[in-house]
Amino acid sequence: MSRFAERPAPAGPTVDGLTEGELLARIFPLLGAARGVLVGPGDDAAVLAAAGASVVISLDTLVEDHDFRLLRPNGFLTTGYDVGWKSAAQNLSDINAMGGTATSLVVSLTLPPHTSVAWVEDCARGLAAAIDGLGATGCSVVGGDLGGGAQLVVTAAVTGTLAGRAPVLRSGAAPGHILAVAGTLGRAAAGLALLEDGRPLEEFGPSAAELVAAQLRPRPPLAAGPAAAVAGASAMLDISDGLLRDAGRIAAASNVRLDLDPVALQPYVVPLEDAAARLGAAPLDWVLGGGEDHGLLASFPRDALLPPGFTAVGSVEPGAPLVTLASRATVLRGWDHFAD
Amino acid sequence: MSRFAERPAPAGPTVDGLTEGELLARIFPLLGAARGVLVGPGDDAAVLAAAGASVVISLDTLVEDHDFRLLRPNGFLTTGYDVGWKSAAQNLSDINAMGGTATSLVVSLTLPPHTSVAWVEDCARGLAAAIDGLGATGCSVVGGDLGGGAQLVVTAAVTGTLAGRAPVLRSGAAPGHILAVAGTLGRAAAGLALLEDGRPLEEFGPSAAELVAAQLRPRPPLAAGPAAAVAGASAMLDISDGLLRDAGRIAAASNVRLDLDPVALQPYVVPLEDAAARLGAAPLDWVLGGGEDHGLLASFPRDALLPPGFTAVGSVEPGAPLVTLASRATVLRGWDHFAD
Repeated sequence: MSRFAERPAPAGPTVDGLTEGELLARIFPLLGAARGVLVGPGDDAAVLAAAGASVVISLDTLVEDHDFRLLRPNGFLTTGYDVGWKSAAQNLSDINAMGGTATSLVVSLTLPPHTSVAWVEDCARGLAAAIDGLGATGCSVVGGDLGGGAQLVVTAAVTGTLAGRAPVLRSGAAPGHILAVAGTLGRAAAGLALLEDGRPLEEFGPSAAELVAAQLRPRPPLAAGPAAAVAGASAMLDISDGLLRDAGRIAAASNVRLDLDPVALQPYVVPLEDAAARLGAAPLDWVLGGGEDHGLLASFPRDALLPPGFTAVGSVEPGAPLVTLASRATVLRGWDHFAD
Repeated sequence: MSRFAERPAPAGPTVDGLTEGELLARIFPLLGAARGVLVGPGDDAAVLAAAGASVVISLDTLVEDHDFRLLRPNGFLTTGYDVGWKSAAQNLSDINAMGGTATSLVVSLTLPPHTSVAWVEDCARGLAAAIDGLGATGCSVVGGDLGGGAQLVVTAAVTGTLAGRAPVLRSGAAPGHILAVAGTLGRAAAGLALLEDGRPLEEFGPSAAELVAAQLRPRPPLAAGPAAAVAGASAMLDISDGLLRDAGRIAAASNVRLDLDPVALQPYVVPLEDAAARLGAAPLDWVLGGGEDHGLLASFPRDALLPPGFTAVGSVEPGAPLVTLASRATVLRGWDHFAD
């Protein structure tokens, strides 16, 4: 099926022709096997075996026309698979950012009546594919809720386990610590800029498809979070709103200045230069301000060995909460859901 | 503030004037103290102390104009407090229906830009008030997500503990068992009918306010679920889609016929007769078909002592999955989210 269309016309039957039970029966087989589950989907609630002395929990929501667009100006279609993948990925990333591993997802789908059943099935496939594809082998979708609404809304809540370790918070960065990043930076933002441009993607060269994939199907580095916890990370979060903005959160929670090294960021900038030139954009802006890659930003004591996947990008300095670039003040950039 | 208005005009500042951080800062203090929490709101995820060998988890969504209306035909306004209360109540009820007690809520709010900050604050107050007012003393709101959208959507996910007991599923009802109900029946449906009627509530007599309260701020009997588990309930669910429809779910999962006793249901019918007469409705329809009171339907072995709060309303019989009323076939009624 082509990803380009005049408009996202419903393919085949739509959800208003089905009961909730009928739609659930279509979705369940696509979600993969339940793992570590005592009671799976189909009762009032699911029951998981508790895998430790604590439970990590978070939730994230994707809203049509706010967090994703079904149809882009260039005719590109966002699929249900993309939205399901992204919902799982951003939730799994929150557990990763605490140093934990995910144990379950519960998912709420709010569906306009004209939503095609195929889109919903594709969304279920995307959820399962992200769990598998990102290596969250102890996790599965254990329950959910379906209902109607004016626009598509996908909310997932995620649970995780710390396997006996302490959670890695935002508040433990101390002067002298090393600042490091795992995963990609700026690629999802570049992909978004490509999608929002009116021109067909083909005009943007061979890197365009990869950058768009980073936006639609982000790949949080799920091995890196627990590895960072084991390695003694002093602070960590997932970069969902942009490096500067999220670094500012560690700076504020830890009451330190974070200094980023532009030379160390250069390897993240270079792969974006071609797309940036074609769009007339500044690739460093994407690296500093772009979220949604769902990489990790962490601080480590100076004598810690950086775990695999992490690259040093700066240092933790004494001083009032601030993020600097080569010791110079920066302007915070990034996404804010209401103020923009 | 009167609950009647020409239209729900935004009161004071709206959310599009605030950043997400500013709005969170307004909400946090209204949510009450975190309980049993190792890491509360403000990091990538919350961390709970695991209270047993298993974790119960569920989620439920309320969508504007589908699950609630801000403005009713009679001018009645649904407040943020009502929606927050109902979101907490329906989620707490899912844990109750497994025989568990709730340990945390995480809440996603999708807010149109014109939403008043006061409405959102009121929603936070309603969440906290329901947790306290319904006696979920081990539970608190531990995290959430805020974002924009075209209509109000409130999704809460809830975790719970079974305190070492087995979960009470839908599948354990066996012939000879007693069928019993905890909580109210039909009151929320009567309240909805009153709200959807064009006439002012005052015209419907003194019971109207109570019935409307049952619709807007349901009171699931949270002590009854764990008590049923202790008493040996063989099957249980929460009545969210109507007695007949939800009984049908136990019948299907347990492969039995459930026979309801109209005489035993009469005490639920009588308090609705006045409102029904004024609306030209049949009160038994509300009792059999109305959901949203979030009472419990459970089966117990014949020799079990019904725990406090439960009333016998029928029996479990052999036969193909079916719900009967005095052994006569019934027409299933109740809410379906897509097919109506």
